[in-house]
Amino acid sequence: MHQYVNAEQKKDLSRHLSVKCNRNSGSKVTDRLQPVEPLKTEGPSIAEIDSKRKRESGVTEASPMRLRMEAFIKEQQDEIVRDLERIDGGAKFRRDTWSRPAGGDGISCVLQDGNVFEKAGVNVSVVYGTLPRAAIQKMRVNHKALDDPSIESLEFFAAGLSLVLHPHNPMAPTVHLNYRYFETMDKTGEGKAWWFGGGTDLTPSYLFDEDAVHFHKTIKEACDKHGRDYYPRFKTWCDKYFYIPHRGESRGIGGIFFDDLDEETSDQESLFSFVQSCCKSFLPSYLPIIERRKNMSFGKNEKAWQQLRRGRYVEFNLVHDRGTSFGLNTPGARVESILMSLPLTARWQYMHEPEIATMEERTLNTLKTPKEWA
Amino acid sequence: MHQYVNAEQKKDLSRHLSVKCNRNSGSKVTDRLQPVEPLKTEGPSIAEIDSKRKRESGVTEASPMRLRMEAFIKEQQDEIVRDLERIDGGAKFRRDTWSRPAGGDGISCVLQDGNVFEKAGVNVSVVYGTLPRAAIQKMRVNHKALDDPSIESLEFFAAGLSLVLHPHNPMAPTVHLNYRYFETMDKTGEGKAWWFGGGTDLTPSYLFDEDAVHFHKTIKEACDKHGRDYYPRFKTWCDKYFYIPHRGESRGIGGIFFDDLDEETSDQESLFSFVQSCCKSFLPSYLPIIERRKNMSFGKNEKAWQQLRRGRYVEFNLVHDRGTSFGLNTPGARVESILMSLPLTARWQYMHEPEIATMEERTLNTLKTPKEWA
Repeated sequence: MHQYVNAEQKKDLSRHLSVKCNRNSGSKVTDRLQPVEPLKTEGPSIAEIDSKRKRESGVTEASPMRLRMEAFIKEQQDEIVRDLERIDGGAKFRRDTWSRPAGGDGISCVLQDGNVFEKAGVNVSVVYGTLPRAAIQKMRVNHKALDDPSIESLEFFAAGLSLVLHPHNPMAPTVHLNYRYFETMDKTGEGKAWWFGGGTDLTPSYLFDEDAVHFHKTIKEACDKHGRDYYPRFKTWCDKYFYIPHRGESRGIGGIFFDDLDEETSDQESLFSFVQSCCKSFLPSYLPIIERRKNMSFGKNEKAWQQLRRGRYVEFNLVHDRGTSFGLNTPGARVESILMSLPLTARWQYMHEPEIATMEERTLNTLKTPKEWA
Repeated sequence: MHQYVNAEQKKDLSRHLSVKCNRNSGSKVTDRLQPVEPLKTEGPSIAEIDSKRKRESGVTEASPMRLRMEAFIKEQQDEIVRDLERIDGGAKFRRDTWSRPAGGDGISCVLQDGNVFEKAGVNVSVVYGTLPRAAIQKMRVNHKALDDPSIESLEFFAAGLSLVLHPHNPMAPTVHLNYRYFETMDKTGEGKAWWFGGGTDLTPSYLFDEDAVHFHKTIKEACDKHGRDYYPRFKTWCDKYFYIPHRGESRGIGGIFFDDLDEETSDQESLFSFVQSCCKSFLPSYLPIIERRKNMSFGKNEKAWQQLRRGRYVEFNLVHDRGTSFGLNTPGARVESILMSLPLTARWQYMHEPEIATMEERTLNTLKTPKEWA
């Protein structure tokens, strides 16, 4: 439990930083990726060094992990966006890109009111910045590499891919994914501490056991290749994190969640490989589900129930998700990217309770007691 | 500013306590007010003493302020509910009442999907309880009466009336009201410290200047009878409190807001009289507005814009309203009463901006720069 709390504090921080990425962009967005404008210091900044590296020799297995993670999530974003556009068969994603003067950039891809998706957001953000001493001290608990009390500030890098899909059809579940990499460096760009975080979870309005089993099994297979204890450990963590205490229910039927994975769990190369497997398992975990649910018939009552469940999604994201609240409380954050996770529409009905022995009641009961699915 | 923060801390506390009112009731509600079940201690509890007082001699001007405030807000609730049912001309309020074993009770009146109102909630809660030392210390900054370091715990009483109305018609504004009284007592029920808090504010999707002027003028008149500086002071406080920092805009066009009004502002009798005037000015401040807007014609676009503004209302209430988040984070709170303030439906659209030189843009501009209306 103690370990969990520390990891959560760190998650706040990394999300906070990924939000700060956009602080100098405001609502100004452009249609293409703008060049990085480095911060003027004595020597070249790490962002400048990295930028030069990428220009001159591209990104290979010999590149620093931060460049490999950045390249990987940008590729994944493109692949996911392509497949989702195919599934939707109608709307295209709107693509907003921006850069921040101190280094880093972001790409928000959002599809709204499509054939299949009511709202779908796939977001990449990359940030270079400086961590003050107070922030380092908060992190020291978990990362031995940060244990030097003489350090006054550290350079950091954060890169993450986030995704939330809200389909129109109440039979088709909402899905969320986020994978991120965090690194601290000295002035020359030499790595000090690093960790991976992330996960994916499914939120059905109507629970179909076969969907839950398929989703969890696909993720479990991706996990099992890298560590036998990964899936059970991260499945439990997910159930704990995506819980709405004031409702006494989970946001959905879970998946995996982890944070703060560093050398105490495994070496950097193995963990990167693990995160890659997780990320690549996303399309196989979700596409068969959306394919079989997107055209199911439904009526007004099913739509109304979905809207109530969307209300719960909003409650979790705005009240309990530390990343979201931290982001929203950060002056200058790009709010539209943070809140792209909210559904297009939601509903709050006083004292609503599903009728006994209905699919709605069965779904709600499952959200009150997390189950094993794989 | 310092004064403001302290008042806010106290507001957290009083809302926290009013929420705890329901902790033993869970979702069990009854159709009528149940008798108070007092906590078993050596002598009779203050709730028992008060209950006996009310039974034997009713509530008069000679009664303790807590009984007068309770009686006043319950009368007001009935009067407001009656007038709103008349305005709606269709739906009736559902009335849920409960009591808590340690003393106190609550009445939630909610009307959903009526002719005029999409959702209307009018809630009273009355709480008796014990404040631990830590909570007393937090309060001491503002209340001289609590300055005795030998006090280990204090009995407290809190009573409040809250109201939120969300009309269907996008031309008709949402309105919120809350007035509350807080008191600490020694074991015999003798008062130690007391204060009043509350306010009312208007949230239009479409701004009609005449509505804003009428609302503010009516409140100002109520304030002016009691103190020439009240309206300007509480109007500014309201603009500060109902602000959504992450959007850089106010929730609405304001009204008044105050907290922590005690003997430093005026004597108890005068402040009660002030709060009564405020409360009684509610129907005159809002009814003419809803009467002239409820049947205005509107189209799909106006409804969609209203839904976006409802999304902002949800953002303020779930992210920034201290009372709501505190309540939701209190184990055992009656969540349905806390969240009755949320609209029936809301919408979040990525990167939505109103078109130039429209009523939507004009309304939004006003929310970005609070104006003087009275």
